[in-house]
Amino acid sequence: MSNDSSVGRVVRELRSLAETGSPGDQLPSTRSLVTRLQVSPVTVSQATASLVAAGVLTSVPGRGVFIAPRSTRHTHDFAWQSVTLGSQMLDVQPIRALQTDADPSVRNLNSGYISADLQPRRELMAAATRALRRPSGWSTAPPEGIHELRQLFAADLGTDTADVLITPGTQAALNSAFRSLASPGQTVLLEEPTYPGAIVAARAAGLQITPVPTDRDGLRPALLRSALAATGARVVLTQPAFANPTGHTLAATRRAEVLDAVAAAGAFLIEDDWARDLALDAPAPPPLFRDDRDGHVIYLRSLTKSASPSMRVGAVAARGPVRERLVDSRLAEDLFVPRPLQEIAIELLSSPAWPRHLRRLHAQLRGRRDALVSALHQQVPQITVDSVPQGGSHLWARVATSLSETELVAAAHAAGMVIGPGTQFHTGEVAGLQLRLSFGAAPQDELRAGAGLLARLLADG
Amino acid sequence: MSNDSSVGRVVRELRSLAETGSPGDQLPSTRSLVTRLQVSPVTVSQATASLVAAGVLTSVPGRGVFIAPRSTRHTHDFAWQSVTLGSQMLDVQPIRALQTDADPSVRNLNSGYISADLQPRRELMAAATRALRRPSGWSTAPPEGIHELRQLFAADLGTDTADVLITPGTQAALNSAFRSLASPGQTVLLEEPTYPGAIVAARAAGLQITPVPTDRDGLRPALLRSALAATGARVVLTQPAFANPTGHTLAATRRAEVLDAVAAAGAFLIEDDWARDLALDAPAPPPLFRDDRDGHVIYLRSLTKSASPSMRVGAVAARGPVRERLVDSRLAEDLFVPRPLQEIAIELLSSPAWPRHLRRLHAQLRGRRDALVSALHQQVPQITVDSVPQGGSHLWARVATSLSETELVAAAHAAGMVIGPGTQFHTGEVAGLQLRLSFGAAPQDELRAGAGLLARLLADG
Repeated sequence: MSNDSSVGRVVRELRSLAETGSPGDQLPSTRSLVTRLQVSPVTVSQATASLVAAGVLTSVPGRGVFIAPRSTRHTHDFAWQSVTLGSQMLDVQPIRALQTDADPSVRNLNSGYISADLQPRRELMAAATRALRRPSGWSTAPPEGIHELRQLFAADLGTDTADVLITPGTQAALNSAFRSLASPGQTVLLEEPTYPGAIVAARAAGLQITPVPTDRDGLRPALLRSALAATGARVVLTQPAFANPTGHTLAATRRAEVLDAVAAAGAFLIEDDWARDLALDAPAPPPLFRDDRDGHVIYLRSLTKSASPSMRVGAVAARGPVRERLVDSRLAEDLFVPRPLQEIAIELLSSPAWPRHLRRLHAQLRGRRDALVSALHQQVPQITVDSVPQGGSHLWARVATSLSETELVAAAHAAGMVIGPGTQFHTGEVAGLQLRLSFGAAPQDELRAGAGLLARLLADG
Repeated sequence: MSNDSSVGRVVRELRSLAETGSPGDQLPSTRSLVTRLQVSPVTVSQATASLVAAGVLTSVPGRGVFIAPRSTRHTHDFAWQSVTLGSQMLDVQPIRALQTDADPSVRNLNSGYISADLQPRRELMAAATRALRRPSGWSTAPPEGIHELRQLFAADLGTDTADVLITPGTQAALNSAFRSLASPGQTVLLEEPTYPGAIVAARAAGLQITPVPTDRDGLRPALLRSALAATGARVVLTQPAFANPTGHTLAATRRAEVLDAVAAAGAFLIEDDWARDLALDAPAPPPLFRDDRDGHVIYLRSLTKSASPSMRVGAVAARGPVRERLVDSRLAEDLFVPRPLQEIAIELLSSPAWPRHLRRLHAQLRGRRDALVSALHQQVPQITVDSVPQGGSHLWARVATSLSETELVAAAHAAGMVIGPGTQFHTGEVAGLQLRLSFGAAPQDELRAGAGLLARLLADG
């Protein structure tokens, strides 16, 4: 990279000499190292000094440099860090499990993303080729995002371009929103069950979580009202359409009730519209954002679910003073979303290939969902799917078994399959064993094989 | 984008009809709107419902939809947000000023980035073309970053690949580090003066800032020791090489003293090595990270300064338990750095074009620095440059004038030039008027013209 890489290289060479040689052996002279390693004398002496400091070498002025006795070599002592850092670790295990690159030998039915074969890879490459030809491709971008991209999201949502802000995906947007809307120690209401990224973000912002149960019709307005009143929370997070993990959609009859409860409490409702592009059977209901008059709804949207996990571009829409706070937070967090990604998103979204991709994606996801639902129905009597989701990429199932969740998940893993343990989606108590099965993550035959495996595990259990 | 964009389009069409028409006018029938706007009846009814909710239209069952009387139309009332949000605004103005896309009519001498003509645009395009051919280009990436890229940073630093974590630039890395190493209300020590992004990040993490003055030899060890003792701070931020804004480098004789002070206090030292790739006269001194034995130094590096502002890829190196906390924080913040950017960085850094770019960049920056220093020396007797920086892209200058900083900055702005007000780099009191002048931001003739303008403004003042 810079001149400095040669110092690093020499450090590694000398360290390896020290490890293979005997303590007390003299090192080759600077001159011979210069010739052998093709570096400058300054580089050799910088590298030597750093290894002397680390106790690997000793320098005897006037005589030379020697391999240090092993006893004097410094062993790193990191114990002090435990004292300084304290015990406040963030438990990110649930989202870490979702992020690891799929081991191809494992059947992963617990993924936040659609499988590679459903992603528009060719379209992304074409969009990238066009975008990177733009002369401005590598300049800075405004903290709000590129105007043209904001316009695309705004038009889809039916709002002003000025209300829309580009973010690097929903996780970052959630963090910004939680931090901008609430202070550490305050309470946030999360619909229950909810997705692990939201739980981690709320905890990272130092917020207390109060779960608000949902049913097949989404958030329960009476419980929402009582939670707002009991906790004084001013932030509510919900996924009104095809919620993750349940697949439930907020009933039309409840929309006004939910918005009224939030408005009456002077609260914000974060609407994470994660599956708008994954409506499988009929168009998704309109965003709650459209029914909101006075800026109570903060709307989140992302392309990671419908395009590709690395298309880390999303949008936040908000109205009123809170919009400025969100822009300021964006700036403080990481200045702006890399322009090349934004330019690629513009090319992708405005290309005729995008609606074609979505149509193909919907057909594929429908086929996968139906295959998994019918395989479970036919082969696994212990599993009940309360309602077949009309959008998204997950199935939420109840399991009747004497196995514990830990036992079932471990048994599945030992048999080469990852399934989503229901407790990861809860912050309160869980009644019975629940699983999230991601039908977007694997082709139909894999899903059928997965159902077959579950049948065997549950029959044994 | 999705089916939903048609609802947005119809909302806008109907809203415009309502605005141009008269209250009480009946809207065209659903059937005629379907034909005219080429959308489905469902789309029309969704759009209509949302405008009825917004008070723009009224619906009379059995008769049709009408333009609502203007008096009943709802005006947004965002006042409740002020109550809910409270007054804890984050002051991001200093970094906002650095981010706005350059108005070409303005001579910008206060930029965090090198000017477009110094950026390796052709090399970036070539790297992108190669990177995007990789079949894995759009998959997820591990939260730690792609192994090959971590290896490149690790080799340069002379450390294990396992110690290195990829981040989306230094601002994000600083936020993660502050939040992982300290809790809201605790104190962080920032060298004084320092860069505005660090001040904003510390405040965003809810930390108290204690400034530790520097001189031409960098951080003053005695003051650092007393600040650590007085505040109980466990986090120190410094730029040991070519600090922004001063250009000062930590003296060789102070390195061990600074590290000892930090170790004695059980503290972390964040080493922001922002200008490693911008050493202009001689190689930069080795990173402090190399002299650190027990994991006290958290090392930050970025490509935004030497490649392009949108090459938002950097690295953090850390050893011991803190490394895991930083990885967890990365995951919680935004899951992972987009893979395409990481792949492009790998191609760029491992190409022979990269060292060629750095050599050309150094020569250009040297020329610009020397031109600005000599123009100031010759034309502006009121300005003193205490020490000519041997790296980076900024000059730090004292100004003798009866004008206030606000007056001078405003006068320069009125004359079409942006300069960096010294107070933006301070969190404590400032003695006298200071300016940061970014020689990396403009070609030599612009810098000379800028010096000429300052001479006129100061002669008038």
